[in-house]
Amino acid sequence: MRIALAQLNFHIGNFEENTQKIINHINLSKNEGVDLVVFPELAVCGYPPLDFLEFNDFIARCNHAISEIAQACIGVAAIVGAPTVNPRSEGKNLFNSAYFFENGVVKQIVHKTLLPNYDVFDEYRYFEPNSEFKCVPFMGKKIALTICEDLWDVDDDKMYQRWPMDELIQQQPDFIINIAASPFSENHAENRKRVLHRTASHYKLPVFYVNHAGAQTELIFDGGSLVMNRDGNVVNELDYFREDFRHFDLDWVKTAKFVPFAAESAFSSHPEVTISRVYSALILGIRDYFRKMGFAKAILGLSGGIDSAVVYALAIEALGPENVLGVMLPSQYSSDHSINDSVKLAENLSGRVVEVPIQNTVNTLLDQLNPHFENKPAGLTEENVQARIRAVMLMALSNKHGYILLNTSNKSEASVGYGTLYGDMCGGLSVIGDVYKTRVYQLAEYINRNQEIIPQNILTKAPSAELRPDQKDSDSLPEYDVLDQVLFQYIELRKGPAEIIAQGFDSALVNRILKLVNTNEYKRYQTPPVLRVTPKAFGTGRRMPIVGKYLS
Amino acid sequence: MRIALAQLNFHIGNFEENTQKIINHINLSKNEGVDLVVFPELAVCGYPPLDFLEFNDFIARCNHAISEIAQACIGVAAIVGAPTVNPRSEGKNLFNSAYFFENGVVKQIVHKTLLPNYDVFDEYRYFEPNSEFKCVPFMGKKIALTICEDLWDVDDDKMYQRWPMDELIQQQPDFIINIAASPFSENHAENRKRVLHRTASHYKLPVFYVNHAGAQTELIFDGGSLVMNRDGNVVNELDYFREDFRHFDLDWVKTAKFVPFAAESAFSSHPEVTISRVYSALILGIRDYFRKMGFAKAILGLSGGIDSAVVYALAIEALGPENVLGVMLPSQYSSDHSINDSVKLAENLSGRVVEVPIQNTVNTLLDQLNPHFENKPAGLTEENVQARIRAVMLMALSNKHGYILLNTSNKSEASVGYGTLYGDMCGGLSVIGDVYKTRVYQLAEYINRNQEIIPQNILTKAPSAELRPDQKDSDSLPEYDVLDQVLFQYIELRKGPAEIIAQGFDSALVNRILKLVNTNEYKRYQTPPVLRVTPKAFGTGRRMPIVGKYLS
Repeated sequence: MRIALAQLNFHIGNFEENTQKIINHINLSKNEGVDLVVFPELAVCGYPPLDFLEFNDFIARCNHAISEIAQACIGVAAIVGAPTVNPRSEGKNLFNSAYFFENGVVKQIVHKTLLPNYDVFDEYRYFEPNSEFKCVPFMGKKIALTICEDLWDVDDDKMYQRWPMDELIQQQPDFIINIAASPFSENHAENRKRVLHRTASHYKLPVFYVNHAGAQTELIFDGGSLVMNRDGNVVNELDYFREDFRHFDLDWVKTAKFVPFAAESAFSSHPEVTISRVYSALILGIRDYFRKMGFAKAILGLSGGIDSAVVYALAIEALGPENVLGVMLPSQYSSDHSINDSVKLAENLSGRVVEVPIQNTVNTLLDQLNPHFENKPAGLTEENVQARIRAVMLMALSNKHGYILLNTSNKSEASVGYGTLYGDMCGGLSVIGDVYKTRVYQLAEYINRNQEIIPQNILTKAPSAELRPDQKDSDSLPEYDVLDQVLFQYIELRKGPAEIIAQGFDSALVNRILKLVNTNEYKRYQTPPVLRVTPKAFGTGRRMPIVGKYLS
Repeated sequence: MRIALAQLNFHIGNFEENTQKIINHINLSKNEGVDLVVFPELAVCGYPPLDFLEFNDFIARCNHAISEIAQACIGVAAIVGAPTVNPRSEGKNLFNSAYFFENGVVKQIVHKTLLPNYDVFDEYRYFEPNSEFKCVPFMGKKIALTICEDLWDVDDDKMYQRWPMDELIQQQPDFIINIAASPFSENHAENRKRVLHRTASHYKLPVFYVNHAGAQTELIFDGGSLVMNRDGNVVNELDYFREDFRHFDLDWVKTAKFVPFAAESAFSSHPEVTISRVYSALILGIRDYFRKMGFAKAILGLSGGIDSAVVYALAIEALGPENVLGVMLPSQYSSDHSINDSVKLAENLSGRVVEVPIQNTVNTLLDQLNPHFENKPAGLTEENVQARIRAVMLMALSNKHGYILLNTSNKSEASVGYGTLYGDMCGGLSVIGDVYKTRVYQLAEYINRNQEIIPQNILTKAPSAELRPDQKDSDSLPEYDVLDQVLFQYIELRKGPAEIIAQGFDSALVNRILKLVNTNEYKRYQTPPVLRVTPKAFGTGRRMPIVGKYLS
């Protein structure tokens, strides 16, 4: 039996494109002598469809696509993820399902049992969990067909009460198929293999696993589909961060020995590997955001600092130098090196850059407002005006020429609210909003791994917003290496103040940082979607009250 | 047996204030001869605590508050909502629970069975559903103690598989207590009574229902706690939109006849009643947002149009005329009546208003950008610049004097993206973002019910953004009475294009509107939290893909 894994990039709600892509790969499979081709979870509509699932019209279009796909399955069988309607009046209206097609018809439908409802996942919002377990018979074999999370609840902190494989194993299946929509985070590849290894080796069954490849706004699907033998060793894995299609003979998989592949060995947990992965994920995230929004060109402000330099380099890699415009927007507080370093950066990347001074506009605006300032001393207000005038200019260029503005805030700044709402916090997409400042430096070093792209001076100068004379980030914030450690403990590990202080951090500092994080929730509520590269990014995966009064 | 309902306004995460408020009302109950005082769902931490629930430190503080509250319960019993830790390793880590305190200790803990996970609710994200049912014995009676949604799944479209009252009734309880956190929407009061009526009359048991009163950013809790006799008739209800505390003798409730109260009869479904409710909800929403954020003063732009006039009037009612500053920001396209009408509005309300012209700043900025515009004709870019310069000015005044900027976009505009991101879409809070334009007029008429507050000219002039000569909203948009009907069908009722067109709307128009709604998701992602007054507001209750390609 020959089984193909179709690791594809779907577009949410784009039924025409998604259906055509599925049918093309069914036809391709037939031509290559494949018996069964497997597509990812909710492939028909794209993942995550979110509240589109609540529209009957959207479900009707899913069903229409399913009919078309069924008709294509002559001479080859297929498994495709799609929502199905729950026929019972009790429970949620839908199931998250896997269709099994054979001989031009729907032969069986399997529903997802374990519905993730944490971090970025809201599957209980839409779906009823499965409660009936039946293997899929095919060519004399029995398939244990599961959907993503169905294989995942294996940690010590079990979130669910039942375990679908324990039900299916009683029917003596021959192998496991898992169709997934499992978004990237920096160590997700290892976790995925660990989880699938435990399943394969525990049940002594080969596993065929297929994931999405492609980004949907903040979520980046990294592919990494794979085949495991019954000892839980990876015998083949598909490419990461791009579409891929491969097929495997079941008998070969059963007996294949584990051979470490180049791709496999590259996925250890070395810090450099993590950074290279984050880099690839961000590139895919930018590229798919633009393509799926129907845009080609990006604009961003170049301050002379490391954040905008890194985003500029990422954007050029993702979209091409001809499609990225860097704008230098100096004020009276901008240092000469800000301009020189940005120009050098652009030269290194053959990138486009223009200069638009802001001081005249800032002065005109402040003159106009001055009668209403009641002689209060200049300060934060005037700093914010500079950042906001820059945003108005960037958005004007964006509107005039059809650019999308890229946001360049990093996760450290976003955490403590060190940024101006409607100023440097603007943009259609936050590229490095899930990357702490200390890791932005690592990204810059990675970008410079073969030659100097980001000028050395940008890497070595002290971070500054340049909104007042001789300003340094360290005037307002702790040094980033300390700040980032405390933020990681609080945001990623959800430690309380006492636990963090017990690790040796200064208690006043910890309390100040946690208070800054919590009182700046109102700013993050209005910031652009953030490309998610850690297990806890700002955005839909982290939901905090704005009027809360906890640690604040 | 005397039972008190403590309908209070809690502040999320403010354990000190919440605990003190609970203990004060326990002491008050004791003084007034109450046997049992009942507080709302998750009263200890405030509702919704969102992802704070994932912090062990937050749960520890809940538990600490519970210990303090228990000690206060000498001579009076109490029921208080709080999270509790699930002792089993399987399932979610927490329960959403009701503590029953008697004689200074925790006597029993009841967990919530039906966990809402739709619209603004995410309870499956945190909580494991209850599966054990046991009435609470007290003074020789048995209480069927339930939590909010536990009594709600009575519609034809049942979302759950079990029904807690069917379990509890087998133990022959004497009455029902329901502790709730049930947010306002325009017809929620009728729905609540209908649901509670079905429960009381079906089981032939009196119901004591207690809700929160107060707003938590977008969610407004309207109180409306009540007591029902065993026929399902309301025999008393607490105030709406404010804290209230009343106690009732159980025997009186059992035998009390239904007498329509003034408050009760006011809550029929007349359109005027709905508008008066929406008005009260918005006032509470503004007031609590400012108080809980620790701010007193609001600023907003006054365009001379109806939206900003209504928000100005609401803000003055909520915060007092001395705490609200209206700013007129005329450009070369502003008509004289825009200024005159706004000045008259301010006079009618004894409100503060200042004028800051924007044209010089706009011209300076456009001069600076002109070399980069490549001689493209003036258009949307220049319109957006005006809106954004206004925002920079408003934010500068806000920063300088400690105002929060109020957003004045209505739901019709927000739906179709008729607004400038980082321009008129700015603000800390969107006051009327869940009010369609046609209902903004009704709100204005309600505000004018006793005397002219909003000048007649504002009510009668054609809506215009005044961003180019003689511009009218109707140049770009369908007339609002048609637009709002189509939007209601799509957003509130989730009808597809075919269903809406079948109602007699022009098909090109319907397709254009639906496309506008879906392609402007990226703008709504970055807008301020919206005070929720309908069952489907923009914000956390409506989650849509940004890169989706459905009807777009």
